[in-house]
Amino acid sequence: MLAEIITIGDEILIGQIVDTNSAWMAEKLNHAGIRIKQISSVSDNREHILTALAEAAGRADIILITGGLGPTKDDITKKTLAEYFGVGMVMNDAALENVSRIFKKYNRPLLEVNRLQAQVPENCEVILNKNGTAPGMWFNHEGKVYVSMPGVPFEMKYMVEEEVIPKLQATFKLPVIIHNTILTAGEGESFLAEKIADIEDSLPAHIKLAYLPKLGQVRLRLSAFGDDAEKLQAEVNIYADKIAERASYAVMAREDIPLEKVLLNTMAERGLTLSAAESCTGGYLSHMLTQHAGSSKVFLGGVVSYANQLKQDILGVNPATISVFGTVSGETVTEMVEGALRRFKSDYAVALTGIAGPDGGTAEKPVGTVWIAAANANKTVIKKFTFGEKRLQNIERSAVGAFFMLITLLRENGN
Amino acid sequence: MLAEIITIGDEILIGQIVDTNSAWMAEKLNHAGIRIKQISSVSDNREHILTALAEAAGRADIILITGGLGPTKDDITKKTLAEYFGVGMVMNDAALENVSRIFKKYNRPLLEVNRLQAQVPENCEVILNKNGTAPGMWFNHEGKVYVSMPGVPFEMKYMVEEEVIPKLQATFKLPVIIHNTILTAGEGESFLAEKIADIEDSLPAHIKLAYLPKLGQVRLRLSAFGDDAEKLQAEVNIYADKIAERASYAVMAREDIPLEKVLLNTMAERGLTLSAAESCTGGYLSHMLTQHAGSSKVFLGGVVSYANQLKQDILGVNPATISVFGTVSGETVTEMVEGALRRFKSDYAVALTGIAGPDGGTAEKPVGTVWIAAANANKTVIKKFTFGEKRLQNIERSAVGAFFMLITLLRENGN
Repeated sequence: MLAEIITIGDEILIGQIVDTNSAWMAEKLNHAGIRIKQISSVSDNREHILTALAEAAGRADIILITGGLGPTKDDITKKTLAEYFGVGMVMNDAALENVSRIFKKYNRPLLEVNRLQAQVPENCEVILNKNGTAPGMWFNHEGKVYVSMPGVPFEMKYMVEEEVIPKLQATFKLPVIIHNTILTAGEGESFLAEKIADIEDSLPAHIKLAYLPKLGQVRLRLSAFGDDAEKLQAEVNIYADKIAERASYAVMAREDIPLEKVLLNTMAERGLTLSAAESCTGGYLSHMLTQHAGSSKVFLGGVVSYANQLKQDILGVNPATISVFGTVSGETVTEMVEGALRRFKSDYAVALTGIAGPDGGTAEKPVGTVWIAAANANKTVIKKFTFGEKRLQNIERSAVGAFFMLITLLRENGN
Repeated sequence: MLAEIITIGDEILIGQIVDTNSAWMAEKLNHAGIRIKQISSVSDNREHILTALAEAAGRADIILITGGLGPTKDDITKKTLAEYFGVGMVMNDAALENVSRIFKKYNRPLLEVNRLQAQVPENCEVILNKNGTAPGMWFNHEGKVYVSMPGVPFEMKYMVEEEVIPKLQATFKLPVIIHNTILTAGEGESFLAEKIADIEDSLPAHIKLAYLPKLGQVRLRLSAFGDDAEKLQAEVNIYADKIAERASYAVMAREDIPLEKVLLNTMAERGLTLSAAESCTGGYLSHMLTQHAGSSKVFLGGVVSYANQLKQDILGVNPATISVFGTVSGETVTEMVEGALRRFKSDYAVALTGIAGPDGGTAEKPVGTVWIAAANANKTVIKKFTFGEKRLQNIERSAVGAFFMLITLLRENGN
């Protein structure tokens, strides 16, 4: 079963927002056995929307549309859909009740533009929007299903999970797609590819292997297409096992999880705690950890010691160390990590100090120079990295480097 | 001048990665006066790529392609482009030299798959990739320009900024697009729309107004299309001034910057410093600030006090306060913010404590309950928020709420 996603909104085409909806929807649909043929972002323009709808319907059976359902004049999706289907608009009682309920809840007067949000093309089935005022709309038209949803992520997500996917499952007999992902780190894409070339060559036509490199990690993803979930799963597992065995030195996880989740899982299993002393990453590393539910079992917290005064006051870094070796040095990062262990009473600690850029570099320590330390009560490991010139990238790479060092230290001490 | 962006990669269509490249490219091209007609994401599939190229060429003059240039077997963009143009492949000396240089730099042996990365369709002009091994490719074909670039963001970004845009500017006479964005906060989209309805109705046909709502903020974006940059700019400014005056109570910035940057700019102008005590946001608020170059002038750092022990040890929160009122309470957040002011010696401080979810909620304090405090030496303001059930959203909304409270407190004390 093929689907297409059309996201509508000038804000996407001028780059003011990143379309995160499509990836989220694609993942959910894939797990339900629906393949996304194409994702298209088009403008808030009548002709363009009409063309995109017709093109998508020529390629796919399910067309999912987000965006352009707001109360303001630039939002024209709804009336353009009515035009596309050749129908008029009607007021929907359930949708109007929903809009009224929301405005009442926030104690706001119901404006005419808001009341009009409950108007829908007369051939649609309304999907109630529990989290917002714009109703979702389901259309059956010439053998295809069209679903129009708001572009606001948490409104759309609720609809997809609770309403759209169950309804699609009830409507179509869905084929099966099985993915099996292996997370590797510390080894380049082409070296991995060479290592597993013969396994890749032996894959049957209905199983594909993809390499997804990102910041020192490569995810290897096997995808199998067919009808029999159990058989496909067994088949894919055999190849995944072969690959994981061959590349075992680099395998971080046998599931599609980010590196920091590997760290959290490993530490949670062993009942260990972690703290952080972040300078150049400025809270990013802590955020990567704490974005995951349950991280508080492992992560006690830490300090964002952007100013040197905090490195001294909170972590107990010796001012002489900073003045002799500099803030960005192996000596300072060692005192930071050992200070964090002591001060926050955690089993493991991590510390980072570096020059994220764009300013602050010198000939000796250019932008991108980062010292990272990982430690437990028995051992402190430090490492100097030389990343590039881009601030955000240096921050991301530092965090990934730190997670990798922590996992490596944990593995030395485990098993 | 119209362009289209085609991003190639199964990883996008199964939702394993979010396509951030397109928004970035769209923004850069827009500023150069090139409008993006459509963004399409297609799979690593020969027929699909060929169709997408032909469709895009039917709508636009410039076709920008990213992805599918890696050394591994799933990457087929290059040979598919050669097929599309009906040409063979040749080894490019400059590209080969570049690949060799990079492998030498990292002291890695040059594999055959890497050497083959220097092979390109014979009708292309190579765009050197300073940050990676896959060359960029520029094609002139039947009056259209095609540019193929790697999907790795920092490789693509360098090429677009340093090579592609200058070359497009040299090739085409580009029209002008002027944007003027106003950032508002604390007021809903439909209320803003009603407030400025008459101004919106008076806009000439070549100026469009868009509402971009996100997490309690609405950006109002005016876009003008034409030939005379100076005239358009003057015209757009008049309407932007009218709107900003009418909505002045909610206007945070007269430029397209995020809310935390408004805060940083305001504090930097006044020479003020800030520290943070984050519990439920777990480092996210600090990261939002420190992602911006120059943030260290304002932001001293702070503590991620995930564990209660840290709230007591570092911030001096009284254990009795926590046991009587709870970790998530006005009393605790007050002691946190005042502890941060004292401990980190900053002019302003912010503190957050809440239940991000999905666990930890109670009937009295459900998931999404967040207390935020903003303070300076003279005044502490606290506020209780009740957000929703989604962890990441609660984290984001908390940070935005905190920035809004800090800006409000600064405005009371400013001018």
